Amino acid sequence: MSSTSAARQYARDNADRFLEELEALLRIPSISTDPAHAGDIAAAADWLTESLRAIGAENVAVMPTAGYPVVYGEWNGAGPDKRTVLVYGHYDVVPAAIEDGWDTPPFTPVVKDGKVFARGATDDKGQLFIHVKALESYLASGGAPVNLKFLLEGEEEVASPNLRPFIEEHRDLLAADACVISDSSMPAIERPAITHSLRGMTYIEIHVDAPHDDLHSGFYGGAVHNPALALVEILSKLHNPDHSIAVPGFYDDVVPLTNAERAEIAKTDMSEAELLAATGVPAPWGEADFTLRERVSARPTLEINGLLSGWTGPGSKTIIPARAMAKVSCRLVGNQDPHDIYEKLRDYILAIAPPTVRVSVELLNTGEPALIDFTLPEMQAAARAYEIGWGASPVFTRGGGSIPIVADIAHLLQIPVVMMGYGLDTDGLHGTNEHFSLEMFHRGIDTAIVYLEELARLPAPSR
Amino acid sequence: MSSTSAARQYARDNADRFLEELEALLRIPSISTDPAHAGDIAAAADWLTESLRAIGAENVAVMPTAGYPVVYGEWNGAGPDKRTVLVYGHYDVVPAAIEDGWDTPPFTPVVKDGKVFARGATDDKGQLFIHVKALESYLASGGAPVNLKFLLEGEEEVASPNLRPFIEEHRDLLAADACVISDSSMPAIERPAITHSLRGMTYIEIHVDAPHDDLHSGFYGGAVHNPALALVEILSKLHNPDHSIAVPGFYDDVVPLTNAERAEIAKTDMSEAELLAATGVPAPWGEADFTLRERVSARPTLEINGLLSGWTGPGSKTIIPARAMAKVSCRLVGNQDPHDIYEKLRDYILAIAPPTVRVSVELLNTGEPALIDFTLPEMQAAARAYEIGWGASPVFTRGGGSIPIVADIAHLLQIPVVMMGYGLDTDGLHGTNEHFSLEMFHRGIDTAIVYLEELARLPAPSR
Repeated sequence: MSSTSAARQYARDNADRFLEELEALLRIPSISTDPAHAGDIAAAADWLTESLRAIGAENVAVMPTAGYPVVYGEWNGAGPDKRTVLVYGHYDVVPAAIEDGWDTPPFTPVVKDGKVFARGATDDKGQLFIHVKALESYLASGGAPVNLKFLLEGEEEVASPNLRPFIEEHRDLLAADACVISDSSMPAIERPAITHSLRGMTYIEIHVDAPHDDLHSGFYGGAVHNPALALVEILSKLHNPDHSIAVPGFYDDVVPLTNAERAEIAKTDMSEAELLAATGVPAPWGEADFTLRERVSARPTLEINGLLSGWTGPGSKTIIPARAMAKVSCRLVGNQDPHDIYEKLRDYILAIAPPTVRVSVELLNTGEPALIDFTLPEMQAAARAYEIGWGASPVFTRGGGSIPIVADIAHLLQIPVVMMGYGLDTDGLHGTNEHFSLEMFHRGIDTAIVYLEELARLPAPSR
Repeated sequence: MSSTSAARQYARDNADRFLEELEALLRIPSISTDPAHAGDIAAAADWLTESLRAIGAENVAVMPTAGYPVVYGEWNGAGPDKRTVLVYGHYDVVPAAIEDGWDTPPFTPVVKDGKVFARGATDDKGQLFIHVKALESYLASGGAPVNLKFLLEGEEEVASPNLRPFIEEHRDLLAADACVISDSSMPAIERPAITHSLRGMTYIEIHVDAPHDDLHSGFYGGAVHNPALALVEILSKLHNPDHSIAVPGFYDDVVPLTNAERAEIAKTDMSEAELLAATGVPAPWGEADFTLRERVSARPTLEINGLLSGWTGPGSKTIIPARAMAKVSCRLVGNQDPHDIYEKLRDYILAIAPPTVRVSVELLNTGEPALIDFTLPEMQAAARAYEIGWGASPVFTRGGGSIPIVADIAHLLQIPVVMMGYGLDTDGLHGTNEHFSLEMFHRGIDTAIVYLEELARLPAPSR
């Protein structure tokens, strides 16, 4: 039995224990968007270092950054003539509370209907853990065919503000021949996908205030501009009636889709029925000139992510609120520049702001869009790994989400980034009842094992 | 020394104690808009009954309603040939928390710069207590010149849903010749005002939802209608560009202002500088064809009182929110009907709701506008009481706020309602740092004492 066959058998034999270990990681509420959870971030980092050491990884360390730490670990047993694969993942998660509408507490993993329910189950703890367990399976079976390095960060959900400097500082440590990232998804279990494009991000907060305090709506109603109304008026001017974005210059740098690209995207088109079933919306929405799949992957967007003003508790309170706030974010596509989009957005909002209120715009974070050539050998090896390990041929797709670090890794380390997502589009990530299919978890480990073998079979890299 | 002179002297001698007693009442967080404070409502009702019994009121009782109770008490010592005055007030308050921006805890009264700071200080605990202390001052000085009845409710801030049935059920108990209410304010201490008109209210909540859950904005952004955006689009269509209200038929029943009425309102006009200083807004806003005072008292309005959708905590969360909510209320003027306005508002909102989301409209509460003839003898007696007790002639003004019960009392008990407000427009009611001037409190007690004497001097009522 080859080392790969043995590793695949080991993974099958230890499937239940792998799940139990994942559940332990999911119990840690490592929420990076809320400073109150800094201790949980540290606990998750410690847990991962223990986990890496336990399987036999070397030079395992919690490495500091200006923010939350990076968990690093490596295994160089394949030898210097073999390829080295850098595995990127993130152990931080977005907020979740049972009051948001979860059926069970989000940090108490529950297995039901063949899925494990918990915040982070699919994004990204479950997916990053696949690679840890793939390496364990090899090391318990005589060793892996390539060298591995793990780069696990704790700030992906706040747009990785410190990872780029970390990579710049540790180029030698992180040197590799390819990077594999599992932090994306496929439309159905029999339709695996390799993501070769990701949307970027510009995330802002808009604040409107005018009165120095909440005002009694009876005393001043009619003579002052209600900040919530002023905010509503501004937000209502960010889209055109055809649902395109009204910010001047917003589309200037969008690379038009070619007919060939549209044909590729059409292979994974989403039907209206699929959209409605997956989301619960009564009807689709968006730019009529583009298919649903194009709208969610190849077109930039502008969303209101949050709104807050005045009294929002039970019953009524007759105030003119002192202030109103909106969180607004744009998904960007090549070749939009997140900072350029921020400036255009800010300038437009301030230009349409009425003189009857005070308006400010704050940049929360940015992420660059990414596009990887899928004819590269490391991309094609990934396709073969799916055929063997997953049991289905993958399609190369554009992802609608943002992993800002993909562009950074590709550029700084000069290596292809292979996005082998093992989630389902319906996993509910960032929403309530996030979950991860156990079958996807175990097939993912199998595919990750096979991928290392496929990489080892490629001609030696030119270094 | 007449009984009235003695009572006025007694009030001056006991001013400090009166304030201490008021502070005890202000310590009870009797918030009627939040069911969690039901026990505090009961505590405030008990406190008031003790207070009424202590000064010598008779038949004092906490009388049940379908909601929070009415505190009742009376004094009939003037005899059946004398007028009976019904005092209305409310012991409930709107929510307040130090996190809202208060300088001191809202239910720990603090005296600073000649003002007592606390939620309810001016609205309405401080003002209703004036009448309790006026009666005490008479009873400690040989008796009052008229009979008194107290009707103190605990649901004014939730639009008095049970007071109208209570009055209907207890018409005989509440029979009186006039009703006096101190729950309004004047622009400055030397400019007392008798409010002869109040705005009504229609308060609704709008809910927009579409996805069954929060969605990842990367996966679905561009293909579904963001509920927060849909809400914004609806809210942006409730006003016309000239700041009038766009709801069809909204102004149908508004009685046009005559030139004579506009001249009366002009006596208390608010300058732009006054508005800016009082509110902190950078510029006035509203219907250009009306003066500032007209806008805030004689014109109907539509305000957004609260907005909530998606992620509103620190940092960013890249979701398409599952739902969005707005609290919206209209201030109404004669002869608008709150239920008719509700139907027009609801029908319009549902008519402009896009088919890409689900929209619902819920009526939270209503209040009728009120208009009292200020040539009535009980109104003119109040003007004389201000001249003698307060030391300044009052103007008859229109109030911009809503006291729904005023219309109910006037109609059901067939008596004039005299609104002698002892607050200042700048007291911050319903906002942060609500306060009540101690000078207003003590001058109010003096004026309330004199008013009973002035009522006693009127020709016998025709009963």
